[in-house]
Amino acid sequence: MKRRRQGEDLHIEFEPLGLGCGSPLGSSLLEAAREAGVGLAALCGGQGRCGRCRVQVISGAVSSPSTAEKELLSEKELALGFRLACQAKAHDDIRVRVPLESLTADQRMQIEGLELPVPVEPAVVTYDLRLPPPTLDDLRSDGSRLGAQMAKEHGLTDLYFDFELLRRLPDLLRGNEWSGSVALRGREVIGFLPKGQKSLGLAIDLGTTKIAGYLVDLSTGQLLTAKGILNPQIRYGEDVMSRISYAMKEGANQLQEAVVGALNELAQALCGEGGLEVDEILDVVVVGNTAMHHLFLGLPVAQLGLAPYVPAVSEALDIKARDVGLSIAPGGYLHLLPNIAGFVGADHVAMLLATGIHESEQATLGLDIGTNTEMTLAVGGRLLSCSCASGPAFEGAHIKDGMRAAGGAIERLRIVDSHVEYQTIGDLLPVGLCGSGVLDAVAELLRLGIVDEKGAMRDHPRVRRTDRDKEFVLVERGESGLGREIVITRRDIGEIQLAKGAVRAGINILLSEAGLTDSDLEEVIIAGAFGNYIRIESAVGIGMLPPLPLERFKQVGNAAGMGAKIALISKEMRAQAAQIARRVEYIELTNYPSFAEEFTRSMHLGPIR
Amino acid sequence: MKRRRQGEDLHIEFEPLGLGCGSPLGSSLLEAAREAGVGLAALCGGQGRCGRCRVQVISGAVSSPSTAEKELLSEKELALGFRLACQAKAHDDIRVRVPLESLTADQRMQIEGLELPVPVEPAVVTYDLRLPPPTLDDLRSDGSRLGAQMAKEHGLTDLYFDFELLRRLPDLLRGNEWSGSVALRGREVIGFLPKGQKSLGLAIDLGTTKIAGYLVDLSTGQLLTAKGILNPQIRYGEDVMSRISYAMKEGANQLQEAVVGALNELAQALCGEGGLEVDEILDVVVVGNTAMHHLFLGLPVAQLGLAPYVPAVSEALDIKARDVGLSIAPGGYLHLLPNIAGFVGADHVAMLLATGIHESEQATLGLDIGTNTEMTLAVGGRLLSCSCASGPAFEGAHIKDGMRAAGGAIERLRIVDSHVEYQTIGDLLPVGLCGSGVLDAVAELLRLGIVDEKGAMRDHPRVRRTDRDKEFVLVERGESGLGREIVITRRDIGEIQLAKGAVRAGINILLSEAGLTDSDLEEVIIAGAFGNYIRIESAVGIGMLPPLPLERFKQVGNAAGMGAKIALISKEMRAQAAQIARRVEYIELTNYPSFAEEFTRSMHLGPIR
Repeated sequence: MKRRRQGEDLHIEFEPLGLGCGSPLGSSLLEAAREAGVGLAALCGGQGRCGRCRVQVISGAVSSPSTAEKELLSEKELALGFRLACQAKAHDDIRVRVPLESLTADQRMQIEGLELPVPVEPAVVTYDLRLPPPTLDDLRSDGSRLGAQMAKEHGLTDLYFDFELLRRLPDLLRGNEWSGSVALRGREVIGFLPKGQKSLGLAIDLGTTKIAGYLVDLSTGQLLTAKGILNPQIRYGEDVMSRISYAMKEGANQLQEAVVGALNELAQALCGEGGLEVDEILDVVVVGNTAMHHLFLGLPVAQLGLAPYVPAVSEALDIKARDVGLSIAPGGYLHLLPNIAGFVGADHVAMLLATGIHESEQATLGLDIGTNTEMTLAVGGRLLSCSCASGPAFEGAHIKDGMRAAGGAIERLRIVDSHVEYQTIGDLLPVGLCGSGVLDAVAELLRLGIVDEKGAMRDHPRVRRTDRDKEFVLVERGESGLGREIVITRRDIGEIQLAKGAVRAGINILLSEAGLTDSDLEEVIIAGAFGNYIRIESAVGIGMLPPLPLERFKQVGNAAGMGAKIALISKEMRAQAAQIARRVEYIELTNYPSFAEEFTRSMHLGPIR
Repeated sequence: MKRRRQGEDLHIEFEPLGLGCGSPLGSSLLEAAREAGVGLAALCGGQGRCGRCRVQVISGAVSSPSTAEKELLSEKELALGFRLACQAKAHDDIRVRVPLESLTADQRMQIEGLELPVPVEPAVVTYDLRLPPPTLDDLRSDGSRLGAQMAKEHGLTDLYFDFELLRRLPDLLRGNEWSGSVALRGREVIGFLPKGQKSLGLAIDLGTTKIAGYLVDLSTGQLLTAKGILNPQIRYGEDVMSRISYAMKEGANQLQEAVVGALNELAQALCGEGGLEVDEILDVVVVGNTAMHHLFLGLPVAQLGLAPYVPAVSEALDIKARDVGLSIAPGGYLHLLPNIAGFVGADHVAMLLATGIHESEQATLGLDIGTNTEMTLAVGGRLLSCSCASGPAFEGAHIKDGMRAAGGAIERLRIVDSHVEYQTIGDLLPVGLCGSGVLDAVAELLRLGIVDEKGAMRDHPRVRRTDRDKEFVLVERGESGLGREIVITRRDIGEIQLAKGAVRAGINILLSEAGLTDSDLEEVIIAGAFGNYIRIESAVGIGMLPPLPLERFKQVGNAAGMGAKIALISKEMRAQAAQIARRVEYIELTNYPSFAEEFTRSMHLGPIR
């Protein structure tokens, strides 16, 4: 190993992001990460206290483990090369693997599911073709000519044409000198690509608040670009029910047009980043909850907004993208994964698909926590699902200083000796609390006995009485970007009690339907934007999640988006999704005898039932 | 049989039109027909001379045959009840069958193909269904619910939904108390009909000049209403080539929109007559020549207008009607029969299908005479087809006093002792000659030696010399509705020579390809508007058709429209049409070695080659 001198630039490479930089000898990996544009989480500001900047050194020499590292990492982890980026200093060119959980929110979304675990077998397949041009002795139509050549060169017969493609085919063939790639979906010819053009797919996770888009090369399954935007339907209502009400009063057209417009812009942006064109997109998979699914397709939602809340359709759909107004390749398709029920949609199916919960051989609980929390318990071959109205508190709504997970939101928080330590999104001045921050705050107050299991707040130097409430000051005015203190109130805690009570009641009912108790759960998989960023200890601490050893919990990020992606590149996965939807035993909680009782009991804070 | 008294009203019923009237004892059947609104042809004005008003008396007593009838009808015909309507007088309530050829043009079109010879087995089938409504214990989606009930009641599984129907399904089910008829096309659910609503089909013969529409009850195959309109694309060019040129210069959108708009109006009108709604139409079949086919669908026509004139597509197409802008049931389908070549289109396939020429065991020639004349020779299992540019003379264009087959057009003509007898469409004052009138005029002038085989006009009291031409006065100014004489000129005769030369050259080349001569032809089937109204003797007289015994000729009217109708109600017929298109050996005349020679030879007037 060559000895490096002080001041000499080393190369530090971060995987799987493919980002790197030159750094002076002796730099910390956290400094190098900032230089390279890798968003590593660091709650303590790089003091070796929070343990959030955990990375794995794959090659190259680094400094020996510090005392802090020995405290926060296990021996096994250290043996595997895991280090805290703020402590480990580069002595050589280094390759570092960054685990998903060590990344900040924004970057995490970009790289999720980069490595897809399924064989690439998309619904749309391309075949290279060269055709003999027509002559006076060969007067076959363009369609017959192409069909005959596909039979001759690729053994594919009985093909038929998408109508919009037919309208363009004569010009496409002549403009590309009778040579290119034929895009087939089953026996339908849906595209003719000039040489060198990619066949693209687009996977969309259509959330009530956020929309995530993933542009994929259909021939390799490779993720090309990814991007998240806000769902513009928000202006018609923050949550599902208010949008359904709007649609029932004013008609659903505006909502449909808004989301289709947003998806078209998203597709443009995703393609633009890769120097690609939207008309190279041949297949789209969209997942969302049942209401988002219906509003996107322009399906009626009245029956979804009134008991007994039934969807217009629950089966998977394959439709021409143009039929809903998506601007992709003229013959391009849109696939929608199946819905399970009015409040358990295709996004939950996609989550199950991506995490493999449906194939689990041990008792596994999968949750997607949000305004509605959908959950499925897999046990002994059964899939039991329900949905609970956990409310908008986890999205920062109905919380005095709550906010969305945007720049300046406190996303992590702990209280040490009456001192509040916190980390904000984007390392900006704090302006409020997003869901994970609220959850941490409640858990810390409960842990320290400042709040009791009924949610009452006892006296404390940071607790002050207001007009009709009490509040705990988290951030002093001088530190705050808000121009005043940032607080959490007794009422905020009540909102969290409602939310966690609903989630916990759902879990309890699924467990009791299966004849299980908490400790029978071998694995708890938590998906979704909110679930990805919460501190499990906090969620367990307040009693939202069962008191299990931490290693039984797994935070999987946007598993719905990952499910959309694997359904995009694999017909087998689409078939599995259909099976999942058929297998699920759906339990309607509003109709469940002991629900009210369970809910009331579950509102108590703390791990003991 | 009860004896009737003078003045007492008898009931005269005309079949298959279903029209009838009360008439005084002793009225002629022709008078009764006029009273009943039945358009019987009467060239001689009811003097028993032309023999055109032939009808068959099915029941009831009429007067004994007159001398004229004994002359113009065979003994066998008289024995079968055939009579001349102008001669036979009613002595009792009478039921009369009117043969197609005895009707005037307008009415003939209305009733063609009333009795369809194929079993009713449409592509779209309906099933009665009653569904259990959703309850808190039965939360299936509308789609799953309908699917499960179809499986239970009709044994139909794996159904999927048209997307536009899905958008309406929740309201349709709830608005009709969960009961109605499900319209299936294969495994696709394309409609849900309230109880008592018919499932309708629309067959369209999309001609360059005229569009004929037939509204059919899909469940019975019964024709409900029929109607003909002009093709509004005429304003972009009279013939196929000028429309292709227009589309190549200005784009094809206007032409597409014009014809789609016309079809939507036609559908409205057809439904309106029967008190029906266009959204009850679930399936449409359209046939037309290749250019009309492409312009209707918005397929590019540039490659159709330039050698080697290849269609974009020749296979049959099944597309959603909405994809071309047809306003029928939201999930309704459009089927297009296959094309054969650039100038032999789906209308010719439909004609072969309707006439069964493709199954003929004897040498049979089928022609569809128009601006382009398409023809097929069936012999020994082979189908040989070609197309010849016969020009617009048969449509009355490029003829000095020519006109379309509209009111006041002379459609029949003969010259007796220098006196011209004629019949006009609608019995109006003559204002010009339509194609069949021109053909009669040329044939009569040739028969009388006033015109020779090269088309030269010899002197005659009615022949006069004009600026650079000669002309024969057919109608004197006093008798004419034109304000001047109606004439046929030497140049007009030249136009007919070009037209008939092209047709005859085509026939000769097909015969020679098959190793046959004229007399080998066992049957000649003539289809199309023009072909339907011509006097065969005239066409044979000028040498356009081979000199065969008259009984070998059969005029079948709008066989293309009939073909569209049978394809509408029979999947088997659609399969046969596809086979026809595949079997045909197409001969491109512009590329055929002896074509120029054949054409020149065939321009001679008269029966001898």
